[in-house]
Amino acid sequence: MARLPKSIQKVIDEFSRLPGIGPKSASRIAFYLLSKPTDDIRQLSESVAKLKENLHTCTKCYNYGESDPCEICQANDRDHSSICVVEEPLDVMALERAGFKGMYHVIGGVISPIAGVSADDLRIRELIDRVRAESDTIEEVIMATNPTLEGEATAVFIGEQLQNLKIKITRLARGLPIGGDLEYADELTLSRSLEGRKEV
Amino acid sequence: MARLPKSIQKVIDEFSRLPGIGPKSASRIAFYLLSKPTDDIRQLSESVAKLKENLHTCTKCYNYGESDPCEICQANDRDHSSICVVEEPLDVMALERAGFKGMYHVIGGVISPIAGVSADDLRIRELIDRVRAESDTIEEVIMATNPTLEGEATAVFIGEQLQNLKIKITRLARGLPIGGDLEYADELTLSRSLEGRKEV
Repeated sequence: MARLPKSIQKVIDEFSRLPGIGPKSASRIAFYLLSKPTDDIRQLSESVAKLKENLHTCTKCYNYGESDPCEICQANDRDHSSICVVEEPLDVMALERAGFKGMYHVIGGVISPIAGVSADDLRIRELIDRVRAESDTIEEVIMATNPTLEGEATAVFIGEQLQNLKIKITRLARGLPIGGDLEYADELTLSRSLEGRKEV
Repeated sequence: MARLPKSIQKVIDEFSRLPGIGPKSASRIAFYLLSKPTDDIRQLSESVAKLKENLHTCTKCYNYGESDPCEICQANDRDHSSICVVEEPLDVMALERAGFKGMYHVIGGVISPIAGVSADDLRIRELIDRVRAESDTIEEVIMATNPTLEGEATAVFIGEQLQNLKIKITRLARGLPIGGDLEYADELTLSRSLEGRKEV
C-alpha cells in the first residue's frame, strides 16, 4: 500500500485519537478538509489552539468558565438554594439543556476502587465544605451522578457525608426514557420505574 | 440555558461542521480535549494547520502527493499499464488498501445535471489526453466510480470517449459484499450478482 502524504497521515492519526472517531471517519475528515479553502482549515486549527485560552476552572463549582467564580456561580437570576452534583463538565451542559436553573458542583469523576479513584481524588471534600459554608442559602443537594454502579455508590457516599447537615438530599428520578419502548427496557430500569410510579 | 465559554463553543461549532460529527459528538470532543494536556491540543491544532503544507495535486493523476508527479505515478515497482479511474482521492486510499498496484486518475466527482456538474468540470479531458499520450504503455482503463446512478453514467460516458482507442475498458464487479447476507441484499445488487456469476 502506498504511503499517504505525511501531513494527511498526521491529521488522520490525530483525529483517530478523539472519542467516537475511528480511522475511517478520520480519513473522511482529512480529505474533507483538503477540499476546503485554507481559511476554513486555519479557523479549525485556531479554534483548537485557543481552546484553553481565557478558560478557568471555577474554584467554587469546578466547572469551566471565563471568569472565577464562573458565570453560573455569579448569576443573580439563578436559584442559589440548590446544588446539582455532577461527574463531569459535560453533564452541566446536558442539565442546562434540560432547563435546570440552580447551581452545580463538578466532582470530576466517580469513586471506583477498580480504577483506583478514591473519594479524596474527587472534589467531594470541597462540596461538603461549600455546603457547610453556605448552609444559610443551600436548601437542596441534587445527586446527578450517572445511573451506573459507581455513580450510585458515589451518590450514596456523598449523601452520607451530608447527612448531619440539615438539607434536602435528592437523586434524579430513574425510569423509562421518553420515547423509549417498554418492550425493550431492561428489567432494572423497569423495576425502578415501577417503584417510582406516580399517581396521575 | 447558560452560555458556554466562547472558546469551547467555537471548537464545538467548528467540529460540528466536519462530516459525520454532530453537535453532541462535537461537545464530547471539546470536553475530551479540555481534559488533555496543552501539548496534545497543540499537536492536533498544528497537524490541521500544516495539512496542506508540502502537498501538491499531481498534474498526472490529480491525487494529492508530496511531489509532482506524485509518488504513485513515479513508482517503478507499480503497473503502469492499467489506470484506475476514481471519483475522489479518498477512493485511492480504499483501492490501495485492497491491494491495487496500478496507476490512478482522480476525475474529481461525477457528472450530475442536478448538481450542475458537467463533464467539463471534471478531469475527463485530461484522462483522455493522458491515455492517448501514453497509448504505448496503457493497456487497460478500470472504471472505479461509485456504483450509484451518477457514477454509472459517468463511467459509461468516459467509456464512450475512450472507445476509439484500442485499450481494454473494464468496470469493477458488482455483487454481494463479502460478509453480507443474501436475505438483506437489495434486488439490484442480487440481480447484478446473478448476471456476473462465475463457474467454480
